[in-house]
Amino acid sequence: MTAPLVTFDDIRAAQARIAGQVDRTPVRHSRRLSELTGADVWLKFDNLHYTGSFKERGALNRLLQLTEDERRRGVVAASAGNHAQALAYHGGRLGVPVTIVMPEGTPFAKINGTRQHGAKVVIHGLDFSGSTEEARRLQVENGHVFVSAFDDPGIVAGQGVCGIEFMEDAPDLDALIIPIGGGGLIAGCAIAAKAMRPQIEVHGVEAAMYPSFTAKRQGDAPKCSGQTIAEGIAIKAVGDIPFALADGLIDEVFVCEEADFERGVSYLATMERTVVEGAGAGGLAVLLAHPERFKGKRVGLELTGGNIDARMLAVVLNRELVRERRLTVYRILSDDRPGILSAMAAVIGGVGGNIIDVVHNRLALDVPAKGAEFDIMVETRDSAHADEIGQALKDKGYALRMG
Amino acid sequence: MTAPLVTFDDIRAAQARIAGQVDRTPVRHSRRLSELTGADVWLKFDNLHYTGSFKERGALNRLLQLTEDERRRGVVAASAGNHAQALAYHGGRLGVPVTIVMPEGTPFAKINGTRQHGAKVVIHGLDFSGSTEEARRLQVENGHVFVSAFDDPGIVAGQGVCGIEFMEDAPDLDALIIPIGGGGLIAGCAIAAKAMRPQIEVHGVEAAMYPSFTAKRQGDAPKCSGQTIAEGIAIKAVGDIPFALADGLIDEVFVCEEADFERGVSYLATMERTVVEGAGAGGLAVLLAHPERFKGKRVGLELTGGNIDARMLAVVLNRELVRERRLTVYRILSDDRPGILSAMAAVIGGVGGNIIDVVHNRLALDVPAKGAEFDIMVETRDSAHADEIGQALKDKGYALRMG
Repeated sequence: MTAPLVTFDDIRAAQARIAGQVDRTPVRHSRRLSELTGADVWLKFDNLHYTGSFKERGALNRLLQLTEDERRRGVVAASAGNHAQALAYHGGRLGVPVTIVMPEGTPFAKINGTRQHGAKVVIHGLDFSGSTEEARRLQVENGHVFVSAFDDPGIVAGQGVCGIEFMEDAPDLDALIIPIGGGGLIAGCAIAAKAMRPQIEVHGVEAAMYPSFTAKRQGDAPKCSGQTIAEGIAIKAVGDIPFALADGLIDEVFVCEEADFERGVSYLATMERTVVEGAGAGGLAVLLAHPERFKGKRVGLELTGGNIDARMLAVVLNRELVRERRLTVYRILSDDRPGILSAMAAVIGGVGGNIIDVVHNRLALDVPAKGAEFDIMVETRDSAHADEIGQALKDKGYALRMG
Repeated sequence: MTAPLVTFDDIRAAQARIAGQVDRTPVRHSRRLSELTGADVWLKFDNLHYTGSFKERGALNRLLQLTEDERRRGVVAASAGNHAQALAYHGGRLGVPVTIVMPEGTPFAKINGTRQHGAKVVIHGLDFSGSTEEARRLQVENGHVFVSAFDDPGIVAGQGVCGIEFMEDAPDLDALIIPIGGGGLIAGCAIAAKAMRPQIEVHGVEAAMYPSFTAKRQGDAPKCSGQTIAEGIAIKAVGDIPFALADGLIDEVFVCEEADFERGVSYLATMERTVVEGAGAGGLAVLLAHPERFKGKRVGLELTGGNIDARMLAVVLNRELVRERRLTVYRILSDDRPGILSAMAAVIGGVGGNIIDVVHNRLALDVPAKGAEFDIMVETRDSAHADEIGQALKDKGYALRMG
C-alpha cells in the first residue's frame, strides 16, 4: 500500500505556508436559513475572497511550492474563471509569470479580471478541454509549469485549509456539504474534516448536467453537457488525484437540479444578504432538495464563490419570483375595444395586484380578428394571492387562458 | 443650560442593557471598495441583523426601559418597515404586546414579516403622517405606549451602540458616514464616536428627495416628496430630539442623488457580495459622488439595512449595467425586408456583442411605411465596446438612431 498523495500533515503545512497571504473568510450561523430548512445551518463565506472564490488557497500553496527555477519559468493553466483569477493574482503578487488559456467565448469580465492581475491571457479552444490542450502545448514550448485547477496534490492540500478553518470556526458540525467540480476542494476538506472530527459526514454536490464524480463512483461513463448556472462545477471529468483521495471519505454525493441551485442563489441573496455564484449555492441546494435528510443536524455549507454576473443574478432573482408566483402572467382573451384594459386593470388592482407589464397579441390565429390576447404581468403577494386575482378576473367574465 | 437628553453614559448603559439579545454585526475592511474609491473603506454590516436593519438596538433598548405597567399596556408605533419589524420581533420575544400602524399600500412582505413576529398590524393612512395620527389615536384609546422610530431618547441611546461597536472594531477611523432619516441613528452614533475619538468626522447622508436635516440646519422649510430607492430614510421631518443632539456634532450632511444610491446598491452586491437596501448604500453613495473629499482617509460606512425587494434589486442591477453601457440598446431605422435582422445580428455578433432582446416598431410615423425601426438590446463589455458595435453598424450603412 502506497502512502496517500495528500495527508492531513500536508494540509497543516499548507496552512502555515499560506498564512497571512490569503484572507481567513468568516464562518457564521444562519438563523434564517436554519428556520427555512430545519437544519442548524453554518456558512463559510469563501465568496468574500479578494478574487471571489475559494481557489486562492490552492493556487497560492502550489505557487509557494515552486522551486526557484520553476518560478522563473512561470506557470500555465487552463481555466475560464476562478482558478485563473486566483493564480493570476497570487502569481502577480509573488512575481511568478502566469499564462492562462481560456476558451473562446469566455465573458470579458473574466478575461479582464485575469489580465488586470498581470497574467498573460491566451484565448484558445472551444471548451475547457481545448484550452487544456493548448496549455499543455505551451508548457512544452515555453517550459512553463502546468498547474491544474484540481488534479494536483499541492492544490488539494491548499484547498484543505478551508476544511481546517471551517472545523475550527463552526462548533461540532454533524455534516459538511461541499460542491464538486474537479474534486480538489472536497478532497482537501474531507481529509481535514475527518482527521479533526472522525464522526463528521462529508457530502458532495454536483449539478445534474455534470455528475462526473457520481458516474466515476458507479463506474459509469459520465454524461456531461449543457449550460448550468453552476458553471464553476461544470467539469466533465473529476480529477484522478482528488477522486482517489476523496472517494473513501465522502458519505453521499447529491445531484441537484438547476432549480435548486437557482433557488439557493436567490435565498442566499434575499434571506442571508450575500451574493454567491451558482456553484456556491450547491450546499443550500442540497438542504432545499432533501430537508428531511438534514433536519436537526448541524450542517456546514461552503459558499465557494461569488463571481456571478450582475445580469445573471438579476435573472435568477426574477425567475424565483415567478417560481413563487410573486410575479404572475395572466393571459386573457378579450374584445379589443376602448376601455377594456382599464376594466381589467381595475379588477386586478381591486384585489391588490400590481401590474408591471402588459403585452397585446392581436396576430395569433386562435384569437378572433376583432379580439385581442393580453399578457398582463402582475406582482402578487404569493400563490394564494395569484389565485385570488385569477378568480376575480374569471368572476368578472374574462376568459383566462393562463395565470 | 439643561443637560442633554442622551449622553455617552446613556449609550453605554444601553449597550449593557441589550447585550446578548441583539447580534453584534461584523465590521470588515473592503479592499475592493477601497481600490474603487481611493478611501480606506470599512463597512459595518447592519444589513445582517435578524430583522434586516440597525433598528433592533433602539427598539430593544426602548422596550427594556418600559415599566412593568407599561409592558402590560403594550406599545404602538407607526412604521412601514424596519422599525416595525424590530419592535415586533423584540416585543414578541419579551412578551410585550405590539401594535404597528402601516400606511395603505405597504408591501405585503413587510406586513407579513411584521405579523409573523406576533405584532398586530393596522393598515391606516395614506402615508407615514396618516399612520402616525392613527397610532397616536390608538395610544389614547388603548393606553399603549407610543414608540417613535427616532424621536425618543431611549431609541437614540440604543442606536448609539452601533457607534461604539463600529469604533471598537474598525481601528482609528478618520470619518463615519451615516444615513439620516429621522436622525436617531446619526445622533446616537455621533455622540458615541465623538466621545471615543474626539477628532473623528461624522457625516450624514440624505436622499435628494428628502433633505429634511439639511433644510432644518439651514432654517428652510423642507421640500420632501417622491419615490426614492432609499425609502428607509424618506422622512419628511427629522426628529426634534435627534436634531438637537446631532446638529452640533455632525460635520457635513451630503445630499445624494438617486443614481448614487442605485450605484451603491449595485457595487455592494457585485464587488462586496452583500445585499443592502437603498438607504444602506448611502455611505458608499457619498464616496462615489465625492471621491476627492475622502481620498486616503479611513472611512467607516454604516450599511443600515438589507430589506430590499428581490425585484427592486434585480431592477437596480440591470439599470447599473445600462448606466455602464454593458447593456446597450441600438435603435436602427431600416428596410423591412427578409434577412435584415440576420444581417444586423451578424454585424453585432462579429464584434462580440451578445443580443438579448429585439423589438420591432413599424407604427412610428417617422418610419417609412415600408421600413421598420429595430430596438436591439445588446450585452456589451463596456462603453468602448458599445461604441465599437455602433461604429460597425454605421460602417455597414445602417441608420443608427440611438446606441
